Amino acid sequence: MDEQGDDLMNYEGLVGEALRGAMRLALQKVVDNGGNFPGNHHAYITFNTSYPGVVLSKVAAAKYPDEMTVALQHRFSGLHLSDDGFSVVLSFGGVEQRVNVPWMAISRFYDPSVQFLLQFDVAAPTSSGNLDLVDVVGVGENVIAFKGRGK
Amino acid sequence: MDEQGDDLMNYEGLVGEALRGAMRLALQKVVDNGGNFPGNHHAYITFNTSYPGVVLSKVAAAKYPDEMTVALQHRFSGLHLSDDGFSVVLSFGGVEQRVNVPWMAISRFYDPSVQFLLQFDVAAPTSSGNLDLVDVVGVGENVIAFKGRGK
Repeated sequence: MDEQGDDLMNYEGLVGEALRGAMRLALQKVVDNGGNFPGNHHAYITFNTSYPGVVLSKVAAAKYPDEMTVALQHRFSGLHLSDDGFSVVLSFGGVEQRVNVPWMAISRFYDPSVQFLLQFDVAAPTSSGNLDLVDVVGVGENVIAFKGRGK
Repeated sequence: MDEQGDDLMNYEGLVGEALRGAMRLALQKVVDNGGNFPGNHHAYITFNTSYPGVVLSKVAAAKYPDEMTVALQHRFSGLHLSDDGFSVVLSFGGVEQRVNVPWMAISRFYDPSVQFLLQFDVAAPTSSGNLDLVDVVGVGENVIAFKGRGK
Protein backbone atom coordinates (compact mmCIF):
# COMPACT_ATOMS: atom_id res chain seq x y z
CA MET A 1 0.00 0.00 0.00
CA ASP A 2 1.36 3.37 -1.01
CA GLU A 3 0.63 5.51 2.02
CA GLN A 4 2.16 8.55 0.35
CA GLY A 5 -0.68 8.63 -2.13
CA ASP A 6 -3.55 7.64 0.14
CA ASP A 7 -6.09 10.39 0.67
CA LEU A 8 -6.83 9.90 4.37
CA MET A 9 -8.29 13.42 4.42
CA ASN A 10 -10.89 12.47 1.79
CA TYR A 11 -10.42 15.77 -0.03
CA GLU A 12 -12.44 14.53 -2.99
CA GLY A 13 -15.39 13.79 -0.75
CA LEU A 14 -15.09 17.15 1.01
CA VAL A 15 -15.02 19.03 -2.29
CA GLY A 16 -17.91 17.05 -3.74
CA GLU A 17 -19.99 17.71 -0.65
CA ALA A 18 -19.06 21.40 -0.74
CA LEU A 19 -20.01 21.79 -4.41
CA ARG A 20 -23.32 20.02 -3.81
CA GLY A 21 -23.85 22.62 -1.09
CA ALA A 22 -23.14 25.39 -3.61
CA MET A 23 -25.72 23.85 -5.97
CA ARG A 24 -28.26 23.82 -3.16
CA LEU A 25 -27.54 27.49 -2.38
CA ALA A 26 -28.02 28.31 -6.08
CA LEU A 27 -31.43 26.59 -6.12
CA GLN A 28 -32.28 28.31 -2.82
CA LYS A 29 -31.84 31.63 -4.64
CA VAL A 30 -34.48 30.44 -7.11
CA VAL A 31 -36.86 29.54 -4.27
CA ASP A 32 -36.20 32.91 -2.61
CA ASN A 33 -36.88 34.61 -5.95
CA GLY A 34 -40.45 33.26 -5.97
CA GLY A 35 -39.58 30.05 -7.77
CA ASN A 36 -38.02 31.73 -10.80
CA PHE A 37 -34.43 31.96 -11.94
CA PRO A 38 -33.25 35.58 -12.11
CA GLY A 39 -32.56 37.11 -15.53
CA ASN A 40 -31.84 34.59 -18.25
CA HIS A 41 -30.58 31.93 -15.86
CA HIS A 42 -31.92 28.39 -16.10
CA ALA A 43 -30.56 24.95 -15.35
CA TYR A 44 -30.29 21.45 -16.73
CA ILE A 45 -29.93 18.92 -13.94
CA THR A 46 -28.86 15.35 -14.73
CA PHE A 47 -29.42 12.62 -12.16
CA ASN A 48 -29.19 8.86 -11.74
CA THR A 49 -32.80 7.66 -11.97
CA SER A 50 -32.09 4.41 -10.09
CA TYR A 51 -30.61 6.20 -7.08
CA PRO A 52 -32.42 5.53 -3.77
CA GLY A 53 -34.91 8.28 -3.03
CA VAL A 54 -35.56 9.27 -6.62
CA VAL A 55 -39.28 9.66 -7.27
CA LEU A 56 -40.60 10.02 -10.80
CA SER A 57 -43.45 8.82 -12.97
CA LYS A 58 -43.53 5.25 -14.27
CA VAL A 59 -43.40 6.60 -17.80
CA ALA A 60 -40.28 8.65 -17.11
CA ALA A 61 -38.67 5.83 -15.12
CA ALA A 62 -39.24 3.39 -17.98
CA LYS A 63 -37.97 5.85 -20.57
CA TYR A 64 -34.87 6.82 -18.57
CA PRO A 65 -33.75 3.70 -16.63
CA ASP A 66 -30.21 5.05 -16.02
CA GLU A 67 -30.14 8.81 -16.04
CA MET A 68 -32.36 11.70 -16.89
CA THR A 69 -31.92 15.43 -17.43
CA VAL A 70 -34.60 17.85 -16.30
CA ALA A 71 -34.75 21.44 -17.51
CA LEU A 72 -35.66 24.07 -14.95
CA GLN A 73 -36.55 26.95 -17.21
CA HIS A 74 -40.12 27.76 -18.19
CA ARG A 75 -42.28 24.81 -17.24
CA PHE A 76 -41.57 24.09 -13.64
CA SER A 77 -43.25 24.96 -10.37
CA GLY A 78 -43.37 24.00 -6.72
CA LEU A 79 -39.62 23.86 -6.25
CA HIS A 80 -38.84 22.64 -2.73
CA LEU A 81 -35.44 21.94 -1.15
CA SER A 82 -34.58 19.75 1.80
CA ASP A 83 -31.44 18.31 3.35
CA ASP A 84 -31.95 15.21 1.22
CA GLY A 85 -32.65 16.78 -2.16
CA PHE A 86 -35.06 18.84 -4.19
CA SER A 87 -38.50 18.22 -5.58
CA VAL A 88 -40.20 20.06 -8.39
CA VAL A 89 -43.33 19.78 -10.53
CA LEU A 90 -42.50 19.29 -14.21
CA SER A 91 -44.53 18.71 -17.31
CA PHE A 92 -43.95 15.38 -19.07
CA GLY A 93 -45.89 15.15 -22.30
CA GLY A 94 -48.35 17.73 -21.07
CA VAL A 95 -48.95 16.03 -17.71
CA GLU A 96 -47.65 17.74 -14.57
CA GLN A 97 -45.80 15.41 -12.23
CA ARG A 98 -43.72 15.88 -9.13
CA VAL A 99 -40.12 14.68 -9.36
CA ASN A 100 -37.96 14.10 -6.30
CA VAL A 101 -34.18 14.10 -6.71
CA PRO A 102 -31.72 13.44 -3.85
CA TRP A 103 -28.65 15.69 -3.95
CA MET A 104 -26.46 12.58 -4.06
CA ALA A 105 -28.20 11.34 -7.22
CA ILE A 106 -27.18 14.41 -9.23
CA SER A 107 -24.29 14.01 -11.66
CA ARG A 108 -24.48 17.34 -13.45
CA PHE A 109 -25.77 20.88 -12.93
CA TYR A 110 -25.49 23.18 -15.93
CA ASP A 111 -26.67 26.75 -16.41
CA PRO A 112 -26.24 27.50 -20.14
CA SER A 113 -26.80 31.23 -19.72
CA VAL A 114 -23.35 31.63 -18.17
CA GLN A 115 -21.86 28.24 -19.12
CA PHE A 116 -21.66 27.25 -15.48
CA LEU A 117 -21.16 23.51 -14.98
CA LEU A 118 -20.78 21.33 -11.91
CA GLN A 119 -20.13 17.61 -12.31
CA PHE A 120 -20.30 14.98 -9.59
CA ASP A 121 -19.49 11.34 -9.21
CA VAL A 122 -22.61 9.47 -8.24
CA ALA A 123 -21.91 6.53 -5.97
CA ALA A 124 -23.58 3.23 -6.71
CA PRO A 125 -27.00 3.11 -5.05
CA THR A 126 -25.98 0.05 -3.03
CA SER A 127 -22.65 -1.16 -1.77
CA SER A 128 -22.89 -4.38 -3.75
CA GLY A 129 -24.67 -2.91 -6.72
CA ASN A 130 -27.31 -5.62 -6.43
CA LEU A 131 -30.82 -4.43 -7.06
CA ASP A 132 -32.13 -6.90 -4.47
CA LEU A 133 -30.80 -4.49 -1.83
CA VAL A 134 -33.25 -1.86 -3.06
CA ASP A 135 -36.92 -1.85 -2.16
CA VAL A 136 -39.24 -0.68 -4.90
CA VAL A 137 -42.39 0.78 -3.45
CA GLY A 138 -45.30 2.54 -5.06
CA VAL A 139 -46.13 6.06 -3.91
CA GLY A 140 -49.48 6.98 -5.31
CA GLU A 141 -50.74 6.56 -8.83
CA ASN A 142 -48.24 6.54 -11.67
CA VAL A 143 -45.29 7.10 -9.36
CA ILE A 144 -42.43 4.83 -8.44
CA ALA A 145 -40.13 5.39 -5.50
CA PHE A 146 -36.81 3.61 -5.15
CA LYS A 147 -35.87 3.49 -1.50
CA GLY A 148 -32.59 2.19 -0.11
CA ARG A 149 -32.70 -0.20 2.83
CA GLY A 150 -32.71 1.45 6.22
CA LYS A 151 -33.89 4.80 4.96
CA MET B 1 -25.26 45.53 -20.79
CA ASP B 2 -25.17 41.92 -21.91
CA GLU B 3 -27.78 40.34 -19.67
CA GLN B 4 -27.25 36.95 -21.27
CA GLY B 5 -23.79 36.75 -19.78
CA ASP B 6 -24.45 38.38 -16.41
CA ASP B 7 -24.09 36.00 -13.50
CA LEU B 8 -27.02 37.14 -11.37
CA MET B 9 -26.75 33.84 -9.47
CA ASN B 10 -23.17 34.65 -8.39
CA TYR B 11 -22.06 31.06 -9.05
CA GLU B 12 -18.41 32.01 -8.68
CA GLY B 13 -19.06 33.40 -5.23
CA LEU B 14 -21.08 30.33 -4.22
CA VAL B 15 -18.35 27.97 -5.37
CA GLY B 16 -15.59 29.97 -3.70
CA GLU B 17 -17.50 30.01 -0.44
CA ALA B 18 -18.19 26.28 -0.73
CA LEU B 19 -14.55 25.42 -1.37
CA ARG B 20 -13.45 27.59 1.56
CA GLY B 21 -15.91 25.50 3.58
CA ALA B 22 -14.24 22.31 2.32
CA MET B 23 -10.85 23.69 3.39
CA ARG B 24 -12.26 24.42 6.83
CA LEU B 25 -13.64 20.87 7.09
CA ALA B 26 -10.22 19.52 6.11
CA LEU B 27 -8.52 21.52 8.88
CA GLN B 28 -11.27 20.45 11.27
CA LYS B 29 -10.18 16.84 10.63
CA VAL B 30 -6.69 17.85 11.77
CA VAL B 31 -8.11 19.42 14.95
CA ASP B 32 -10.23 16.32 15.57
CA ASN B 33 -7.12 14.18 15.04
CA GLY B 34 -5.40 15.81 18.02
CA GLY B 35 -3.85 18.62 16.01
CA ASN B 36 -2.00 16.33 13.59
CA PHE B 37 -2.56 15.58 9.94
CA PRO B 38 -3.30 11.89 9.39
CA GLY B 39 -0.70 9.77 7.57
CA ASN B 40 1.68 11.76 5.39
CA HIS B 41 -0.74 14.62 4.87
CA HIS B 42 0.44 18.18 5.40
CA ALA B 43 -0.48 21.55 3.96
CA TYR B 44 1.00 24.75 2.60
CA ILE B 45 -1.38 27.65 3.05
CA THR B 46 -0.77 30.91 1.21
CA PHE B 47 -2.53 34.07 2.35
CA ASN B 48 -2.63 37.82 1.75
CA THR B 49 -0.71 39.29 4.70
CA SER B 50 -2.33 42.72 4.35
CA TYR B 51 -5.86 41.32 4.56
CA PRO B 52 -7.96 42.69 7.46
CA GLY B 53 -7.83 40.36 10.43
CA VAL B 54 -4.42 38.85 9.66
CA VAL B 55 -2.27 38.72 12.79
CA LEU B 56 1.43 37.88 12.54
CA SER B 57 4.74 39.00 14.00
CA LYS B 58 6.32 42.31 12.99
CA VAL B 59 9.27 40.38 11.58
CA ALA B 60 7.06 38.19 9.40
CA ALA B 61 4.87 41.14 8.36
CA ALA B 62 7.94 43.12 7.31
CA LYS B 63 9.42 40.15 5.44
CA TYR B 64 6.19 39.26 3.65
CA PRO B 65 4.30 42.51 2.98
CA ASP B 66 2.08 40.96 0.28
CA GLU B 67 1.65 37.26 0.80
CA MET B 68 3.07 34.47 2.88
CA THR B 69 2.96 30.69 2.83
CA VAL B 70 2.87 28.76 6.07
CA ALA B 71 3.63 25.04 6.26
CA LEU B 72 1.48 22.97 8.55
CA GLN B 73 3.59 19.85 8.84
CA HIS B 74 5.94 19.22 11.77
CA ARG B 75 6.34 22.49 13.64
CA PHE B 76 2.89 23.71 14.37
CA SER B 77 0.62 23.54 17.39
CA GLY B 78 -2.47 25.09 18.88
CA LEU B 79 -4.55 24.94 15.70
CA HIS B 80 -7.90 26.62 16.31
CA LEU B 81 -10.70 27.25 13.83
CA SER B 82 -13.49 29.81 13.95
CA ASP B 83 -16.11 31.17 11.57
CA ASP B 84 -13.65 33.92 10.64
CA GLY B 85 -10.49 31.91 10.10
CA PHE B 86 -7.84 29.76 11.72
CA SER B 87 -5.03 30.48 14.13
CA VAL B 88 -1.96 28.38 14.75
CA VAL B 89 1.34 28.61 16.60
CA LEU B 90 4.29 28.42 14.24
CA SER B 91 8.05 28.66 14.65
CA PHE B 92 9.70 31.60 12.89
CA GLY B 93 13.47 31.51 13.27
CA GLY B 94 13.16 29.37 16.37
CA VAL B 95 10.61 31.65 18.04
CA GLU B 96 7.05 30.38 18.44
CA GLN B 97 4.40 32.87 17.40
CA ARG B 98 0.66 32.71 16.94
CA VAL B 99 -0.57 33.51 13.44
CA ASN B 100 -4.19 34.37 12.70
CA VAL B 101 -5.48 33.94 9.13
CA PRO B 102 -9.04 34.83 8.03
CA TRP B 103 -10.53 32.31 5.59
CA MET B 104 -11.07 35.14 3.11
CA ALA B 105 -7.35 36.02 3.14
CA ILE B 106 -6.33 32.56 1.86
CA SER B 107 -5.38 32.30 -1.82
CA ARG B 108 -4.02 28.75 -1.86
CA PHE B 109 -4.31 25.49 0.06
CA TYR B 110 -1.98 22.72 -1.09
CA ASP B 111 -1.41 19.25 0.31
CA PRO B 112 1.66 17.88 -1.53
CA SER B 113 1.14 14.32 -0.26
CA VAL B 114 -1.79 13.87 -2.63
CA GLN B 115 -1.24 16.91 -4.88
CA PHE B 116 -4.49 18.44 -3.70
CA LEU B 117 -4.77 22.15 -4.52
CA LEU B 118 -7.45 24.74 -3.92
CA GLN B 119 -6.99 28.27 -5.23
CA PHE B 120 -9.07 31.30 -4.36
CA ASP B 121 -9.39 34.86 -5.49
CA VAL B 122 -8.69 37.14 -2.57
CA ALA B 123 -10.70 40.35 -2.70
CA ALA B 124 -8.92 43.61 -2.04
CA PRO B 125 -8.86 44.36 1.69
CA THR B 126 -10.64 47.67 1.13
CA SER B 127 -12.94 48.88 -1.59
CA SER B 128 -10.58 51.67 -2.64
CA GLY B 129 -7.39 49.81 -1.92
CA ASN B 130 -6.17 52.78 0.13
CA LEU B 131 -4.31 51.85 3.24
CA ASP B 132 -5.82 54.83 5.06
CA LEU B 133 -9.03 52.81 5.22
CA VAL B 134 -7.21 50.23 7.32
CA ASP B 135 -6.48 50.70 10.99
CA VAL B 136 -3.17 49.28 12.11
CA VAL B 137 -3.33 48.35 15.79
CA GLY B 138 -0.80 46.62 17.98
CA VAL B 139 -1.88 43.42 19.73
CA GLY B 140 0.73 42.58 22.32
CA GLU B 141 4.46 42.52 21.89
CA ASN B 142 5.90 41.84 18.44
CA VAL B 143 2.50 41.41 16.86
CA ILE B 144 0.71 43.54 14.32
CA ALA B 145 -2.98 43.29 13.59
CA PHE B 146 -4.50 44.78 10.49
CA LYS B 147 -8.17 45.47 11.11
CA GLY B 148 -10.65 46.75 8.57
CA ARG B 149 -12.95 49.62 9.49
CA GLY B 150 -16.18 48.63 11.14
CA LYS B 151 -14.94 45.20 12.18
